[in-house]
Amino acid sequence: MSFDKIDLFDASKGKRGTSLSKLLNGINGPQDLKHLSVLQLEKLAGEIRELLIHTVANNGGHLAPNLGVVELTLALHKMFDSPRDKFIWDVGHQAYVHKILTGRRETFSTLRTSGGICGFPKRSESQHDAFGSGHSSTSISAALGIALARDMSGAKGNVVAIIGDGSLTGGQAYEALNHAGHLAINLTVILNDNEMSIAKNVGAMSEYLAKMRTAPTYSKVKHDIEYLLRRIPAIGDSVANTAERVKDSLKYLLVPGMLFEELGFTYFGPIDGHNIPLLLDVLDKTKSVKGPVLIHLLTQKGKGYAPAERNADKFHGVGPFCIETGEIQKNATSAPSYTQVFGDTIVKLAEQNPDIVAITAAMPDGTGLKKFAATFPKRFFDVGIAEQHAITLAAGMATQGKRPVVAIYSTFIQRAYDQILHDVCLQNLPVIFMLDRAGIVGEDGPTHHGVFDYSLLRHIPNMVIMTPKDEDELRHMLYTATELNAPVAIRYPRGNGVGVKLQDCFTKLETGKAEQLILGKDVVLLATGAMVEPCKSAAAILAGKEISASVINARYIKPLDEQAIRQLARDTGIIVTVEDNMLAGGFGSAVLEYINSQNLNWVKVLRLGLPDKFIEHGQRGQLLTQHGLDDQGIATSVETFIRQFGARK
Amino acid sequence: MSFDKIDLFDASKGKRGTSLSKLLNGINGPQDLKHLSVLQLEKLAGEIRELLIHTVANNGGHLAPNLGVVELTLALHKMFDSPRDKFIWDVGHQAYVHKILTGRRETFSTLRTSGGICGFPKRSESQHDAFGSGHSSTSISAALGIALARDMSGAKGNVVAIIGDGSLTGGQAYEALNHAGHLAINLTVILNDNEMSIAKNVGAMSEYLAKMRTAPTYSKVKHDIEYLLRRIPAIGDSVANTAERVKDSLKYLLVPGMLFEELGFTYFGPIDGHNIPLLLDVLDKTKSVKGPVLIHLLTQKGKGYAPAERNADKFHGVGPFCIETGEIQKNATSAPSYTQVFGDTIVKLAEQNPDIVAITAAMPDGTGLKKFAATFPKRFFDVGIAEQHAITLAAGMATQGKRPVVAIYSTFIQRAYDQILHDVCLQNLPVIFMLDRAGIVGEDGPTHHGVFDYSLLRHIPNMVIMTPKDEDELRHMLYTATELNAPVAIRYPRGNGVGVKLQDCFTKLETGKAEQLILGKDVVLLATGAMVEPCKSAAAILAGKEISASVINARYIKPLDEQAIRQLARDTGIIVTVEDNMLAGGFGSAVLEYINSQNLNWVKVLRLGLPDKFIEHGQRGQLLTQHGLDDQGIATSVETFIRQFGARK
Repeated sequence: MSFDKIDLFDASKGKRGTSLSKLLNGINGPQDLKHLSVLQLEKLAGEIRELLIHTVANNGGHLAPNLGVVELTLALHKMFDSPRDKFIWDVGHQAYVHKILTGRRETFSTLRTSGGICGFPKRSESQHDAFGSGHSSTSISAALGIALARDMSGAKGNVVAIIGDGSLTGGQAYEALNHAGHLAINLTVILNDNEMSIAKNVGAMSEYLAKMRTAPTYSKVKHDIEYLLRRIPAIGDSVANTAERVKDSLKYLLVPGMLFEELGFTYFGPIDGHNIPLLLDVLDKTKSVKGPVLIHLLTQKGKGYAPAERNADKFHGVGPFCIETGEIQKNATSAPSYTQVFGDTIVKLAEQNPDIVAITAAMPDGTGLKKFAATFPKRFFDVGIAEQHAITLAAGMATQGKRPVVAIYSTFIQRAYDQILHDVCLQNLPVIFMLDRAGIVGEDGPTHHGVFDYSLLRHIPNMVIMTPKDEDELRHMLYTATELNAPVAIRYPRGNGVGVKLQDCFTKLETGKAEQLILGKDVVLLATGAMVEPCKSAAAILAGKEISASVINARYIKPLDEQAIRQLARDTGIIVTVEDNMLAGGFGSAVLEYINSQNLNWVKVLRLGLPDKFIEHGQRGQLLTQHGLDDQGIATSVETFIRQFGARK
Repeated sequence: MSFDKIDLFDASKGKRGTSLSKLLNGINGPQDLKHLSVLQLEKLAGEIRELLIHTVANNGGHLAPNLGVVELTLALHKMFDSPRDKFIWDVGHQAYVHKILTGRRETFSTLRTSGGICGFPKRSESQHDAFGSGHSSTSISAALGIALARDMSGAKGNVVAIIGDGSLTGGQAYEALNHAGHLAINLTVILNDNEMSIAKNVGAMSEYLAKMRTAPTYSKVKHDIEYLLRRIPAIGDSVANTAERVKDSLKYLLVPGMLFEELGFTYFGPIDGHNIPLLLDVLDKTKSVKGPVLIHLLTQKGKGYAPAERNADKFHGVGPFCIETGEIQKNATSAPSYTQVFGDTIVKLAEQNPDIVAITAAMPDGTGLKKFAATFPKRFFDVGIAEQHAITLAAGMATQGKRPVVAIYSTFIQRAYDQILHDVCLQNLPVIFMLDRAGIVGEDGPTHHGVFDYSLLRHIPNMVIMTPKDEDELRHMLYTATELNAPVAIRYPRGNGVGVKLQDCFTKLETGKAEQLILGKDVVLLATGAMVEPCKSAAAILAGKEISASVINARYIKPLDEQAIRQLARDTGIIVTVEDNMLAGGFGSAVLEYINSQNLNWVKVLRLGLPDKFIEHGQRGQLLTQHGLDDQGIATSVETFIRQFGARK
């Protein structure tokens, strides 16, 4: 199917700034769409694209997904009445247009900045955000819950889940379809099919949807079938039943969506998701259908902005960029990102070790596995947005002697806790988990901060957890993990490394051994991963205040370097643990447990980390500062602690 | 489809004991099946049923699932060569027959006893157990991993996943089907369709499978379709394409399994899963099929033992029973189980509070929700084995003012950690989690012990965690939870309550307040849930040794009763925390964190709980004793600690 032509965003026009004559300036809520004509909606779509591109070019964010749903969102708010009618945005990174149309146009410039508009739907931000999201494949479950509650209470209103074909690869979406299809409930699922997860979509469902894209339209097929059926002659009893079955079934058989029909949904589609009159028509029609409905839309990620159309993957989630060229602003530092270093390292290790295989859950690029995929296509597996499957798949491979490296962001590993415990650790299988974007991730906010992984993983028996102080150590840790016969998680932060030289060879790090970086006598800073650098600076600040601090790079969250902790305790009597993880159940908690188990009660421990609340969105550095996890904050906390409680000596 | 007649197990014959002439006595490994005729295999099936019934009647275990797969397992081991060929049993509670046939016949009498045969596949137990299991829906993922590893290594062998229709409701199974169907890989999935999860199966997929059961057989349909197609007259160009599509598609259209074919599998079925020659034939045929194959078997849970055929639900997992009558042995104590008390309480509360709804993941009976389902059918939701969906569904309902109570065993909540965090707690929605079978569950072993929940949940912001000292307190906790505007988890042990009187009215328990049960002056036992009773007894034992111990019922794992802890610390200087949870990140760890945050360094804390390893199967009491968590063990630990470190005073 070819899309209706939509004028590409003209960068030169965009630069002229906003004009007062814009339609968009009159849109302060969904009610302001009601009187607009189709032509006006189409003009509005262009203005919204302009605002999207300008804002994301400034603030960074999810551009391509939002450009793909401009017409859909306009049609939804024109045909339905939010907040009575409820829209549940799966993942939620495509809800910018929705936010612009629901009273957040003027504040949209604050997108993803501290205190500003969140990049995802958020109940506390607007009554139009019916359900918060951030992780994939939850929308149909939430929408079904809302619809069931509505019916139990005898309330009114439509409930619409908007889910991408990528999110449909997540098992929870299927669990919810399976449940909803079984019920006679009014619920609309809009399948926003852009042939992408974050990267190009994979899997059998994706192929199935692709087949539909090329299928003839419903009405043509229906007409032809009726013609054929009329020409089937009268037949004897022996095959009469089969003929009846043929007739009954044919309406499903050749029409796309059979699979959804089998799951109990009434299927509409595929429909051009950029054609506003068509969208209005189908949404209107489905309102009167009884039972669950699935509308299959075809959209284009990045629609209307040429650089994003050409490279939807790059413009899925993006930092600030130049509108004219589409060039992403370079970071000031020239150090490679942890992601890049991991990507290069696994290729190098895999050249030497044929057992190494790599698995991603729909993020070959984000996790740095693109180079591996190109170099070792037969040893690379993209399973779709399916973290649970990814991990049990790895466990299966590990039983056969492979060394699977599963690269998943820290926040998404939360989806597979049970598989890590039950399939990997219980069987003590050597699966390696590369947890990128650990700690505070910044602008993506509370749904995406990777601040639970220490607490989540360290109580699982057999698990080894490492965290590197810099990008070079990441390399040695990955090498070390491939040499260990145990499950290993390596967690590292978003963004650039600290700029150290990458060594030519790999060193196997001794299991459970920390590394002394600075020797002091008053206090020990026991730092984890990304906290090592600020701890080193904090030690310098403290030195200026005549406090002599040791700095230790913990390296291992589990097993702990018990010998070092005993020694440190003896040396200074004060240990400060520093982590960008929840304090509850985290690294400091592990240190307390060890000290308690050894009855080293005389040791004073100060635990620095994140408090028992969800961390909002904002710049990573700002958020770390807010929580006292920058060098100054650490130094101040340590100084206060020492002044208050003194050293043992 | 009607099943072939299989002689019902004759209890009177069964009682005569084993006969030396039995075929089974000659089966010491799969190779001993190779020379057997179909008739002999059928006789063997009867002997295996006899052994299954006798063993489970003695030891308890999963009877009905195993009775349903006797013929299938015989056919698999006859047609394939384990361990070169690999069988992956989903959930694994149906692997008894496999164990009997793979060298564990003689030790089968030790099933589920300490040091004996595990009730689930276990890699460390036999090379024939290709992949361990216990939780649902992992088999296709593991099998695919094994098959991919085989192909990468150029190795040989068949990989067969055996999955029930119940497990197919779990999203991970779909994630794996979606991935496997996309690959040209030799992999066999056997769908063991018995129309049950643990209870009667639910969902659209289940209805789809039911439709197939009544569908005419493949060959009949194929014949009729060909007849019809021949009679379609010559047609003009305009509809020629459609006619071609009709012809091409018809072979899939009327044949069951279309849905699996769309996902890339070659479908065979449905096939009588108790017909050995048919099974051998289809397994043989599928060996030569390229690409992934799905074989759809129809089996009957409990097959061959009348009481289990009549009530497969009851005989799914069962304690020791009388073979003649099928009556389950009554427990000595007359106290109701926690499960029963919960089941009665939620009905009572729901009578007063119309917002209460209940959700189960395929376990209406096991979780005690059967009475609620019967009383409030419109407020009860069985979502299938789909914990992830269950919880986001509940979150959706909670946004509309409902009070969803999600009843899931502690071990299965592990499947939904991310949904609890991301969908419930981040939005601070009042969903109540009833975590039955928490702590050590006993015979089901390491895959099922609910010993991670404190560590898993307490680091999630907004979460409230309670645990009752007895079955009456469970009632007040549930009531309290319905009155709180926050996510609440209540965790309680397997088995009978302690036998206290159930009060007529409900009391709202103050949030985060512990309860003093015994006042002592030397030491404080801070006990959680099922550990309260042994702590009371331990206090009595200690009193005999002139140690005066307070006993506190913690009630809340989170928030902690900080005031009480400070007071206790002052009173005695020694706090002993007692929990049937991992020590790492558990309740004692929370107490340490609090004491540390308050700099109460002079308090001595002894933490009793479970060590950093997986706990094997065995009797619950035995396992608690082994880990020092019975009254004697607690008393001994406390006494040793006090003698060693003394009280502060």
